Amino acid sequence: MNTITKTITNPSFISPDEFLDHWQGHRRVTRRVIEAFSEDQLFNYSIGGMRPFSAMVNEIISMCGAGIKGIATDIWTTESELDHHTRTNEAISKAGLLSQWNEVTEEIDFLCPQIAESKFNEKVLAFGQYEGKAHSIILYFIDNEIHHRAQGTVYLRSLGIEPPAFWNRD
Amino acid sequence: MNTITKTITNPSFISPDEFLDHWQGHRRVTRRVIEAFSEDQLFNYSIGGMRPFSAMVNEIISMCGAGIKGIATDIWTTESELDHHTRTNEAISKAGLLSQWNEVTEEIDFLCPQIAESKFNEKVLAFGQYEGKAHSIILYFIDNEIHHRAQGTVYLRSLGIEPPAFWNRD
Repeated sequence: MNTITKTITNPSFISPDEFLDHWQGHRRVTRRVIEAFSEDQLFNYSIGGMRPFSAMVNEIISMCGAGIKGIATDIWTTESELDHHTRTNEAISKAGLLSQWNEVTEEIDFLCPQIAESKFNEKVLAFGQYEGKAHSIILYFIDNEIHHRAQGTVYLRSLGIEPPAFWNRD
Repeated sequence: MNTITKTITNPSFISPDEFLDHWQGHRRVTRRVIEAFSEDQLFNYSIGGMRPFSAMVNEIISMCGAGIKGIATDIWTTESELDHHTRTNEAISKAGLLSQWNEVTEEIDFLCPQIAESKFNEKVLAFGQYEGKAHSIILYFIDNEIHHRAQGTVYLRSLGIEPPAFWNRD
C-alpha cells in the first residue's frame, strides 16, 4: 500500500524570497531619500505641522527592526516600549540614523529566511496589540515606509531638491 | 500502478485572494483621500512644482485599469497610449474622477480572480515596456498608489486638513 502525504499549501501570489527582495529594494530607495536631506533639513524641516523626516525614519527603523524580530521569534516589543523617536542615542545625527538603518537591513536579511513559509499565513499579535496574519503585518511595515518616504519626497521638492527615483530599486 | 501527479507550486508569502483584499483596502483609503480635497484644491493645489493631486490620481486610475487588464488578458496598452492626465473627458471634475475610480475598482474585482495562480510568477512586458514578473508589476501599481497618496496627504496637511487614517483599510 502506498502512503501519499499531501501537503496543503497556500496559493502563491509571491514567494517569501521574492518578497524579501521587494522589501530590500524599497529600503534602498528610502536610504537614498534619507541621504538626500542635509543634516539640518532631516531633523528640522517640516510642512503642515508634520514631523521632520528623521522622526518618520526613526519610526520605520523601530517598526521594521522590532517587527521582523517579532515575526521571526514571537518575541514582541510592545507598542509602549517602541520608541519611535530614538532607537538608541545614536539617532541624533544623520550618520547615526543611517547606521541604524544598515543594522535593520542586516537583521531583516538574517531573520526573514529563517521564517517558515507557513508562518506568513498565521495570525500574530504584533507589538502585543495589532492582530493580523504575518504577511499583512509585514506588508504594513512596507506600506508605512513607502507612505512616509513619499512625504519626505514632498519635503525635498519643496526644498528644491530632486528626490531619488521612486522606481529605481537597485 | 498508481499515478501520482505532482504539482510544483511557488512557495507562498501571501495568496492571490488575500493580496486582492490588500489592494482594495488601499484603494478605499485613496478614495477617501480624493474625497478630502475640495474641487479646487484637487485640480490646482501643489507644493514644490509637483502635479496637483488630480493628476496623480489620473495616473493611478490609468495605470491600475490598463495594468490589471494587461496582466489578465495579455493585451497591453502601451506607455505612449496611456493617458496619465485624463482617462476620458469625465475626469475634469472630482465627481468624474471618483466615478472612474469606482470603475477601476470593479474591473480589478472582476479580473483578478480570473488570473491563474501560475501567472503571477510569470514574466510579462507591462505596457509594452517594463519587464518583470506579474506579481512585481502589480506590487508596483500599489506602491505607486501609496506613494502618490502620501504626497496628497502632505498637500492636505499643508491646507490644514486632517487626512483620512492611513491604517484604516475598511
